Amino acid sequence: MNEQKLAATAHPVNELIQKRWSPYAFADRPVPAADLQSIFEAARWAPSSYNEQPWVYLVATKTRPDAFEKILSCLVEANQAWAQAAPVLALGCARLQFSRNDNPNGAALHDLGLASANLTFEATALGLAVHQMAGILPAKARALFHIPENVQPLTALAIGYAADPDALPETYRQRDLAARTRKPLAEFVFGGDWGQASSFT
Amino acid sequence: MNEQKLAATAHPVNELIQKRWSPYAFADRPVPAADLQSIFEAARWAPSSYNEQPWVYLVATKTRPDAFEKILSCLVEANQAWAQAAPVLALGCARLQFSRNDNPNGAALHDLGLASANLTFEATALGLAVHQMAGILPAKARALFHIPENVQPLTALAIGYAADPDALPETYRQRDLAARTRKPLAEFVFGGDWGQASSFT
Repeated sequence: MNEQKLAATAHPVNELIQKRWSPYAFADRPVPAADLQSIFEAARWAPSSYNEQPWVYLVATKTRPDAFEKILSCLVEANQAWAQAAPVLALGCARLQFSRNDNPNGAALHDLGLASANLTFEATALGLAVHQMAGILPAKARALFHIPENVQPLTALAIGYAADPDALPETYRQRDLAARTRKPLAEFVFGGDWGQASSFT
Repeated sequence: MNEQKLAATAHPVNELIQKRWSPYAFADRPVPAADLQSIFEAARWAPSSYNEQPWVYLVATKTRPDAFEKILSCLVEANQAWAQAAPVLALGCARLQFSRNDNPNGAALHDLGLASANLTFEATALGLAVHQMAGILPAKARALFHIPENVQPLTALAIGYAADPDALPETYRQRDLAARTRKPLAEFVFGGDWGQASSFT
């Protein structure tokens, strides 16, 4: 793997978290069906508010070109440029109402995030990479895939094997070669009040 | 650990995903500061739309009773009943606007979910458990912690060591002893169209 992409952590973390990153370059190599099963099985076991499991994924492999092109066409153009190389594409959707009483589920998008993170860990454990995108065309996705009104398509996910970034157009190549950056802990972990340091940061 | 709680997966997944669950019973045992650092470091390295990192956590350990009580009071009563036993409580918040241009960030809640899943994964690796809750009093949290208007408090997280459920009131004891359940993959992984099977499920 690209050593630049190992997170330069301030505190030790599990290696799957340290290794996970979102490549722009994907290899022309299919993902075994068994690995896809494990990846979505991992999403399945995410926690959710009232165990609602509000996540839904529309998934297409390149071996089914029609379905693949359909998902690809729901990405904003800038994402289509690189994501078309991935062997698997998915759309991440959230059911916005609880199935037991039709009440709004304010945690639905959050819980889709929990499931997608689970899916990404499992992918990382299997030597795969996932690049999630918010840059999609939700109205187009809704129309093309007949997504019901109370379901929100929010993300796309490119899934596959990270490749040598040298084949990428320059902008993306630079991004794949750059080190990953994050805010320090003290900027987002607070203690007794907003903006106040916690006892351990 | 409670063997009932090992996910009965239909396809193999990483053991940390299989082991993770949300206990109601927490042991009276503090979490080392180094472990809290690693847990939030894991959240730090989650991916996010435009690398915005919209998550903010307000965190209190029982060693700071005032801050701990303040967070506890922001949980709905039913959650206070069991969460008061946890050694660490946190509120999960999301900045709803991009910092670079103040535009609304439609992925903010989703990305808080990505960060909280990372945090939970690391906690599991360290032998800890996290029980996330959507049942909080957001207006109270906003007032007590001076949370800015463009930030949404969405979740609470109880963090600590799972304990023997026998000390719990009967309702919670039953929940801690019950097997974990999930929808089958075919109900949330679709292929070429909504409701259609994917190539691998």
